[in-house]
Parts: sequence; structure tokens; C-alpha cells
Amino acid sequence: MYQLGIVKRNIQRADRGAVDRLANFGAATVHEALGRVGLMKPYMRPICTGAHVAGTAVTVLLHPGDNWMLHVAAEQIRAGDVVVAAVTADCTDGFFGDLLATSFQARGARGLIIDAGVRDIKDLVAMGFPVWSKAISAKGTIKATLGSVNITVVCAGAVVNAGDVIVADDDGVVVVPAALAQQTADAAAAREANEVAKRAKFAAGVLGLDLYDMRGTLAQAGLKYID
Amino acid sequence: MYQLGIVKRNIQRADRGAVDRLANFGAATVHEALGRVGLMKPYMRPICTGAHVAGTAVTVLLHPGDNWMLHVAAEQIRAGDVVVAAVTADCTDGFFGDLLATSFQARGARGLIIDAGVRDIKDLVAMGFPVWSKAISAKGTIKATLGSVNITVVCAGAVVNAGDVIVADDDGVVVVPAALAQQTADAAAAREANEVAKRAKFAAGVLGLDLYDMRGTLAQAGLKYID
Amino acid sequence: MYQLGIVKRNIQRADRGAVDRLANFGAATVHEALGRVGLMKPYMRPICTGAHVAGTAVTVLLHPGDNWMLHVAAEQIRAGDVVVAAVTADCTDGFFGDLLATSFQARGARGLIIDAGVRDIKDLVAMGFPVWSKAISAKGTIKATLGSVNITVVCAGAVVNAGDVIVADDDGVVVVPAALAQQTADAAAAREANEVAKRAKFAAGVLGLDLYDMRGTLAQAGLKYID
Amino acid sequence: MYQLGIVKRNIQRADRGAVDRLANFGAATVHEALGRVGLMKPYMRPICTGAHVAGTAVTVLLHPGDNWMLHVAAEQIRAGDVVVAAVTADCTDGFFGDLLATSFQARGARGLIIDAGVRDIKDLVAMGFPVWSKAISAKGTIKATLGSVNITVVCAGAVVNAGDVIVADDDGVVVVPAALAQQTADAAAAREANEVAKRAKFAAGVLGLDLYDMRGTLAQAGLKYID
Amino acid sequence: MYQLGIVKRNIQRADRGAVDRLANFGAATVHEALGRVGLMKPYMRPICTGAHVAGTAVTVLLHPGDNWMLHVAAEQIRAGDVVVAAVTADCTDGFFGDLLATSFQARGARGLIIDAGVRDIKDLVAMGFPVWSKAISAKGTIKATLGSVNITVVCAGAVVNAGDVIVADDDGVVVVPAALAQQTADAAAAREANEVAKRAKFAAGVLGLDLYDMRGTLAQAGLKYID
Amino acid sequence: MYQLGIVKRNIQRADRGAVDRLANFGAATVHEALGRVGLMKPYMRPICTGAHVAGTAVTVLLHPGDNWMLHVAAEQIRAGDVVVAAVTADCTDGFFGDLLATSFQARGARGLIIDAGVRDIKDLVAMGFPVWSKAISAKGTIKATLGSVNITVVCAGAVVNAGDVIVADDDGVVVVPAALAQQTADAAAAREANEVAKRAKFAAGVLGLDLYDMRGTLAQAGLKYID
Repeated sequence: MYQLGIVKRNIQRADRGAVDRLANFGAATVHEALGRVGLMKPYMRPICTGAHVAGTAVTVLLHPGDNWMLHVAAEQIRAGDVVVAAVTADCTDGFFGDLLATSFQARGARGLIIDAGVRDIKDLVAMGFPVWSKAISAKGTIKATLGSVNITVVCAGAVVNAGDVIVADDDGVVVVPAALAQQTADAAAAREANEVAKRAKFAAGVLGLDLYDMRGTLAQAGLKYID
Repeated sequence: MYQLGIVKRNIQRADRGAVDRLANFGAATVHEALGRVGLMKPYMRPICTGAHVAGTAVTVLLHPGDNWMLHVAAEQIRAGDVVVAAVTADCTDGFFGDLLATSFQARGARGLIIDAGVRDIKDLVAMGFPVWSKAISAKGTIKATLGSVNITVVCAGAVVNAGDVIVADDDGVVVVPAALAQQTADAAAAREANEVAKRAKFAAGVLGLDLYDMRGTLAQAGLKYID
Repeated sequence: MYQLGIVKRNIQRADRGAVDRLANFGAATVHEALGRVGLMKPYMRPICTGAHVAGTAVTVLLHPGDNWMLHVAAEQIRAGDVVVAAVTADCTDGFFGDLLATSFQARGARGLIIDAGVRDIKDLVAMGFPVWSKAISAKGTIKATLGSVNITVVCAGAVVNAGDVIVADDDGVVVVPAALAQQTADAAAAREANEVAKRAKFAAGVLGLDLYDMRGTLAQAGLKYID
Repeated sequence: MYQLGIVKRNIQRADRGAVDRLANFGAATVHEALGRVGLMKPYMRPICTGAHVAGTAVTVLLHPGDNWMLHVAAEQIRAGDVVVAAVTADCTDGFFGDLLATSFQARGARGLIIDAGVRDIKDLVAMGFPVWSKAISAKGTIKATLGSVNITVVCAGAVVNAGDVIVADDDGVVVVPAALAQQTADAAAAREANEVAKRAKFAAGVLGLDLYDMRGTLAQAGLKYID
Repeated sequence: MYQLGIVKRNIQRADRGAVDRLANFGAATVHEALGRVGLMKPYMRPICTGAHVAGTAVTVLLHPGDNWMLHVAAEQIRAGDVVVAAVTADCTDGFFGDLLATSFQARGARGLIIDAGVRDIKDLVAMGFPVWSKAISAKGTIKATLGSVNITVVCAGAVVNAGDVIVADDDGVVVVPAALAQQTADAAAAREANEVAKRAKFAAGVLGLDLYDMRGTLAQAGLKYID
Repeated sequence: MYQLGIVKRNIQRADRGAVDRLANFGAATVHEALGRVGLMKPYMRPICTGAHVAGTAVTVLLHPGDNWMLHVAAEQIRAGDVVVAAVTADCTDGFFGDLLATSFQARGARGLIIDAGVRDIKDLVAMGFPVWSKAISAKGTIKATLGSVNITVVCAGAVVNAGDVIVADDDGVVVVPAALAQQTADAAAAREANEVAKRAKFAAGVLGLDLYDMRGTLAQAGLKYID
């Protein structure tokens, strides 16, 4: 992990079918389906509400104020990928703007997850290129120091291996290990099916206290009602 | 204050008429009308701009990562209430999503104020259920530890008693003690009436320096004009 | 710098033609054109996405919780100005709302940049008065202590002299010294022209690696490709 | 709560004997003894490690950048009090320095808890006057706006009534309601007695797994050991 | 990674000799020797200045407000280990105090690295048990939810595998993969040897400009001297 | 301001006598004497309590993660200088350690003020080289991009011109324009003399209410005493 100056060309991407099934579910559902792990920190926010993507990770390790490796990463993108960019130290500079977005989009990228800043927000939104970032900043970057592409990185507190599935929406960004993509999609589907019935009951006024049969456990834990 | 494991069933809600009058005013106006106290910290933000609610508080004290008491609170909601959730320590987890929102809405809740995170943002917005929160996070919670319902809580720096009036909009969240609801509505109405005339004068180019007769005080304080 | 109790009436505003030319470019482009300096910190955010202004700075130095000098500043505004407000210590109070916005707008101000909080967000957006701020807060301010108008201030980490050009959009706020306005507009135009061709190539699938001829430098720096 | 412009002269201080018993215990022990409530947020830190005080609260509500009411509060101090200062909005200014500390100390105050900044750190430490604060700042304050003394305040997220017991050490600041002082001291003593035996066992190598008989519960919860 | 409810008993610890050699170097030197990777975020601070430890990692994954797994981890500690505790979401609660420290110390632990809060600071310092943490808080935790022991975790932005070497001092915490311990110790020794000569030259007034032969490169980069 | 790639060799340092007089006063006193302006933000903290320096500023503008210009600055240091380092974007990397400190000390520098991180804390403290910084981080920096030396910079929110006086202690860092050094020293001396008498009165139990004759103003402002 964290070797500098390396580009891995052949990575094992998660099964495309599983990725596309995962695209039907929100980040919260996928996070639960995965066993409540793999979530990036909540400071990662979409630059525009309403975006929702699922794709396979091309990972990049950057240095503060230096976006050189994003150009190296562009060549490794295949249709259906999501680029995941980590930085070796906290930085809010705008590493990514409309030119790189044009390039990434032309290569087939579905979006960008970056633990740093981005710029050209108006253009990115107009292009429909979804981005989740830590910051927005007009400050550009230089191209001077080697990082790596497709090594394992830590992005916003989550470990991401090249080829893992990224599911991102307004609730946040979750990472599904490639090997667990199919079973996570199954679990997400089951969970969602289960919620349809619950939602109808809640809408009809049934309480969670009864739906989940909590009254006994609460009483046992010592809950007291006072008039 | 802060007794754990208690649910107060009978609370004294602020007068409904006063609450509905307060609904006509923004949080900034109500805050001024109340004597510039009772405001939650500005990190409390609506999940969607444009929301504006006034209602009576059903309070909940939660533990980090545990939303059990939100289900207990649901049963105490009456039409016109706003649920106010405090947590015993800082936490950004998503304590609340579309299922609980469906339940709260079915019980007549007008919104949620929570000093923590929420999730299922897209659904909440689509449902038109207004939420003010500290964070957005896909991370769910467990149901293991007792908190309390309708005790006095501190939410985002403001004391909230069950039955107090909550007024929230894009500017923030203000808490009006139930006993002061009527007089605060009166003061807000007076303030707003007063601002109509001022706004017209400002629009016509009159300066605050003249409208508020500040020139003498400024000179006395020592303000110097330099060419 | 930072003399309290002073209002400079005659300031040297940047050339209007240059300001209007700069209005054609985003903050990121202007920041690059200026040599990558003069950017405010990225915590300065527009209260509403999509705003884009360029204007000449009327500067104000405020004290925490005290907006008295904003009224003094109003008188100094001329058509095409942008008010830039600094505070002597960190503060999130709402120093500015719809009444002052009405006054500023009537005086010809194009917007406000304030290193503090603002309120009446809904009204400000409805009025189309653009504001970049550090916070949103319903909490109002008092009028008790002298600051200054049109002295040099530090706002969100950037030095601003009265008369400098402010360019602000969704990416942030950049300050162009009045004497450099024309040449910065030239450089921005050149940069933008240059980007049109690049954007087309990126859209056609050309990689930055080739467009910027980076492969040699990367190899020289030691980049290794692994299969 | 939060009435401005009021000084309550006669307050009901917690029993002195109970306060002095509580002085034997750390904030963590008292917090547990009280039922795990009443703790200020952990950003409140002592200006010097090793301080440990217990006393009865004289409360003050201040405005940002204005320390006028600290002088009003000084007159209300009796021997054994701890001053607790809240502010109506976040502020890091240095509200308190060596002169006020000299005055407070002369009046018999045991320390200061302030949800803002202080200055003259070197002098305060030399005087042996303990302070817990949110910040350290050389920036002084003005004396212009009324707050209140001995009303109920929210300080660093905790509700404090005049006369409540404050226990503060390197671990933080806890507030014990005056009426619960005696029983909390009892509970703290019991807890501490209990810990002596435990500490000896831990030191002898006994595991918490066995001391607290956790193995069964862990297995039941599904914990698996892998070789 | 991140499987819940698992305890790995047999882990491959880094070579003891290499660990003890690494103990001779500071975190900054080890970080450079490792190729400038593996550093935890700088919010991780020692509870007491002057501490310096190197040891093999026993990892723990905790849930917010729940320290159950620290007791499970205690049993896995061998002499020379450092416990590294990650949490599934941001939390500042005090997960660890003097009792657990007594237990860990009795088991041979050299210290604790925890991405959360600790308490009983005075006792921990008196015991000489070194701790690096994100926060200090008197608030205790419950024992209700399973995490894991000796799985790979992300702690303060760094990936830690059970058995990796942890080197921590006043500058921060660095993680050396077990397989690289020996060669990192070699590189650190070489680096340190090299610095001795440099330090002497700097002390004699030689400039880095000359020592590192930078004048040419600076001139080539365009640096201009102005009188 | 903010021209990149420039080193100003001949700067106008503040009068040495005035600097040495200012060294007798704390940052808080100097800040008041200067008219309550010129203070850096309170996040700037000494790496070791008890340090107190006054000196003339040699300024440096750095880029995130790049300390090249600190070596360029070293050559410009004369006995009695304090180096003030600003960065073009927020960064916590450790730009400065024991080698550079050895060099700076050999050149006669009295200390370093840096709006970023430093490392080798133990060595810096042992050397007695005082540093005020935003962060401590073991992460080193590269030497790749030109900044400037002795241009005007913004450091932690304060404008600093080369040659200005820096006064720093446990309370923070204040910047005195070179031209105001003498009169600020006079004002500080007067202020300090005035405080001696006040301190004695406070120690004797006189209240600020009486010493500053506040009772009338407070009553006029509407303060009410309640029994």
C-alpha cells in the first residue's frame, strides 16, 4: 500500500452486472447491506444534489497541491469507472476542473470522488459530471511530484482498492470490495424489498414500537412513562 | 434535566394560535422579537433550502449512534409538533431516514431538528418533510441504550423544553419558550410592520445613517472622514 | 493598515472597462491569470449557487457582533462596487440582511463579500443580491463600536485595498489589485482562448499525457507501469 | 432562561460539605456518578495541566467581544464559587486576564469556566488561578452590552444553574445540580472504592473479560476467534 | 477488511529486533525513511509531551461510544505491543482510562493509539502509559456492540495491519508495514547519520542554499533578488 | 503584494531599541497599545509554553508542502529577526525541523512564526528555538516551487511587512508596523504602569464596578438586581 511512482494497468474490476445492480440502491442501503462498513467520512459532499452513481474504482494517490497523477489516471479509465483520489496530506486546493472532467468523461468515467477540492463547479454541473469532494476552491495545482495509480488508498477514511465498487449519492460515498459486489447487491435488494412493506405500515400510522416489537425490550431496559 | 430512561406523556404545548402566528415570521425576526436569545448554533442547516416551519417541541435525548428513542418519541407526537433531538455527545451518524420520516409525518409532525446526522436525503426532500441537522451521513444507528423523551434538552447550544415553540427556516432554528409564544408573536408582528416602511425608504436610496440618525453618534464616537 | 475610526471617501477604483472585462471570467481563470495569488479561503461560499459578479471593492472593517460600519459603508458605495467586509475576530453572527441589502442595492452595489454571517437568506436570494459569506446565522448584531471604511483589510486570508477588483462565483472569491486589472483581464482572455482548443481535444479522447507532452517527464521522474 | 439585563443576588448554593466531598473526585468519576450526564463539550480545556477544582457556580451570560458582565459577576462571588461564563454566540476573544483573575481570587473564586477565550496565560498560571476555556487569545474585549448574572445558562453544551456544583480537572468539566450534590458525592465515593479492588486485579494481570464476566455475552453476540 | 465480530489470535508481528532499532528514531525520520507514507493525521496528539514508543500493532475496531472490544483486545496483547484503536465513525468519548491502562500495562503493552478520546489523564501520565489520541473527554462508554480485533483498520487516515510497527513521538504517529521494518530501520539510520554532519554545518553558519547546492536551480526557476 | 519568485534583500527593519523595549511586554499588552489591531488568529500556538520573543520580521511566502523558500530566507536573516512564514493555501505539513532551526539560530533568528506545521518538536524545545505554528506534523515537504522572501504576506489573518515587529508569547502573536514601534512601546509602557495600581486594588478586594465607575452606566443601560 502507498507505493509512490507506480501505475497498475491491469486491475480486477468488480463484475459489471453486480455494479449495475448496485446502482439501483442508495449509499445508505448499500452501506447497511455490506454490514455497515466501508463508508467515507460525511465531509465528502456532492457538488450538486441529486447525483447518484455506481462504478468501479480507478484509484489515484496525489500530493497536496499537485494534480499530475490525475492525468496519468485518465489513461487507465474504462467505461463505467469512477475515479477515487486520495491525497497524502489534507488539502483543499482545486485539483480538478472542467478540462479534466471533459477528458474523464470522454474516457467513460462516471464520476469523481476526491478527498480534496475541485473547481469550475458551474461547468461540471452543466456537463452532468458528478463529483463528491471535501471542498470547492478556485486554487489550481502544479504538476511536479509522482504519486501512484491503482494502488490501494485511504480516501476520506475508507480503504479503496482498484476495482472496488463505489456507490455515491446525496447521503455519501460507500466502497464495496469487488469480491463482495454480488452478495451486497443481493442483500441490498432484500433490504429494500423489506422496507416497502414497512413504509406502508408507517404511513398508515403503525408505530416502530409495535412494528419492531420494542415495548418489551424497552420496559426491560427500564424505560418509565410519566404522566 | 437529563434524566435517562423517562418518557413524559403529558406536556404543556404552547398555544396553537400563537404557534400559527409565529409561523408567519422568519427565524431572524422571531429571534429579535424574543430579545435575541434562544437561537441554535449556526451549524444547524436545513437539508433543503426554502423550508420554513413552526411547531411545538417533542424533545428526545439520544446516545451517539443509537436512535432507539426516536421510535419512542414517535408515539408522543401530535399534529403540529416538531421533534427536537439532542445527543449526549457529538455524533454525525444518520439517525433518521425515510422510514422514520414516514412514521413522523403520519403522526402529524411538521419537521425534525436534530443535533446529529440524517440520511435518505433524496426521499426526505421528495416527501416534503423538513429537517434541520448538523450533518448528512449514510451511516445508520443501533437500538441499544435508553435516552429520554420530553425532558429538557440542550440542542445545538439552545435549551429546549417539551412544548416550546420551534421556528426554523433557511436562517436557522430558534426556540421560543411556550409561555412567551403569544407576546413573541406580537413583538414579531410589530417588528415586521416597522420594517415595511424602512425597506421602502432604503429602496428609495435613504441611508441608514439618516434613517437611524447615526451621524451624530458616529461623530461623537470619533469617526473621521478623510478625502 | 487597520486604523480604526476612519472613512476614506476618495478611493481610486480600478478601471471600469477592465472590471467589466474581468466579469466575463470565472474566479478560477482570474486567479490563474493573476499568477495564482489573491484568492480568499475556500470557506467563503455563495449563499446561492450560480451567482457571478465583478466589481470594485468598498472595504469595511467590523468588530464581532457589530454591524454599525456597514451603514457608514453604504454611503460610500457607487454603482459597480462590491462591499468587502472583514471582522477583527472570528464571528458567525448575521451582520447583514434584507434591509441593508435593499440599501446597498439602491446605492448600486453588485454584491457583498463578508468574512462572517448573514441572514434573511430567502429574501436576499429573491432580491437577486449576491452574497459570499463564511456562515449563515439568524443572530443579529449591535451598533456600538467604530471600525473603518475603505482602509486596507484582510478578508478570509486575502488583502483587499479599496478600489481593487473582486471577482466571485461558485468557485470562490479572488481579489485583483486595481493596477493589475487590465493586464489580468488580458491574461484571462488568453488563457480562456487557449482552453477552448484543449477542451475540444479532451472531448475527442486525447489524453493530457499527450496534449501536455508529459510522458517523458513522468518517465524521467521514475514513474513505472506494472501489468 | 436567558433574560438579559438581570443580576440575581440571592442564589441557592449547593451544600458546602457536599461540594468539598466532590472535590475529592475527578470529573470522569463524578460524571459517571451523576448518571453520565452534565458534561461540557471536550473542547473545554484547562490552560495548565494538573488543575482540579470543585465549587459552586456563579453564572454569567456574555455577548461576543464584550466582558462587561464579568465585572458585575465579580461582586456576586463568595468564597468557594467557580464562575461559569457563557456567550450568546461563538467567540474566541480573550475576555479574561490577570486583572480580573486578581479580582476574582480576592473575592474567593476557585476558578473560571468560560466558553470563549482568555489571555495573560503566563500570569494566570503563576497566580495559580485555574481556568478552563475554549481558546487562548490576546484579543481583549469592550464593555458595551448588558448580559446577565446568575441566570441559567448553556455553557459548552451543558445547562448550568447558579449554585450548581462544578467539578473540573484535566479530563473536562462536569456540572452537578445543587440538589444532587450529596447523592452524587455518595455515588462517586462508592464508585471509587469499587475501582481500587479492580485496579489491583488488572495490575495482577486479570483480564476485564474475566473480571466483568464478558466471555459469555461476547460469544452470544457472535464474537468469533480465528487462529 | 472491516469484518465485524472477529478476533484474530495469531498475527505475524514485525521482527522484534527491527522494532527495537526503529525505537531509536523519531516519527519524522521513520516517515521519511519509509518513503513519506504511512503517517496518521496530525490531529493525533500525545496526552503528555516527551513520550516516544515503538511497538507492534494489536488493532481494534470500535463503535462510537462503545469500548467493549478494548477488553477483548487486552487478551491479545503481548509484551512490546502497541494497541491501535479505530472507530467506525467520528467520536470523542473517553474510551480508555486508568483501569484499562493498568490492564494493558500488565499485559506488556507499550502504549495506545486511539482515533477517539481518552480520560483519567492525570493517572495515565502518572503511570507512564503513553497515549496518542484525537481528544480528551471525561465521558465514558458502554459495552454493547461487537467490533473486531487484529483486522486491518484505518486509524486517523492510515492503514494499520495487525503486527505492523508503530512509531510515535511528539511529532505524530507513523505506521511501518511489518515486512518493511528492517529496511526502514536501515534507511532511518542512514538518514540520521547523514543529518549529523549537516547539523554541524548549519550550526557553523553554512546555508542550505550552499549545502544543498540550490542556487543554480533557484536561478533557473526564475528567482530574482531585488535590492 | 504576493509577487512570486522575488527576494528583497534590503528591508527597513524597525528600530532595534524600540524592538527591545517591546520585548518587555506581552502580546496582549502590545495588541492593546497598538489600538487592538494586528493580532494573528488564535490557532497560532507556541510549541512549548513560556516562550516570549520580540524581533523584526523576515517574511516568506511558501506553497503547500514545499519549504524551498525557507532556505532562501535563511540567507536574509540578521541577528534579532523573527521569520514569518505564510502559505498560499491551508497546509499542516511539517515545513520546519531541527536542521533549519539550527541554521536559523546560527544566523541570529529569535524564532519562527509559521501558518503551517513544524516537526522535530523535542529537538526544537531542547534547542530553545521558539516556534508558533498552526500544527505539528511529522510529514516533511519538497523543494520544487518558487515563493518569495520579504514581500508583504498575510500570516494567520494578519498582514506582515518585512521589518515589522513581531511580539509573541503564550497569548498569541501580534504584528507592530515598523513605523509604529516606538510609539507602541510607549503606549505599552503607559498601559503596564497603569495596571500595577489597578492590580493592587483588585487584590485588595476593590471591584471593577467601583474602580472603573461602572454602576451608573450599568443602571442607565437597564441592569436590574433581583433578590
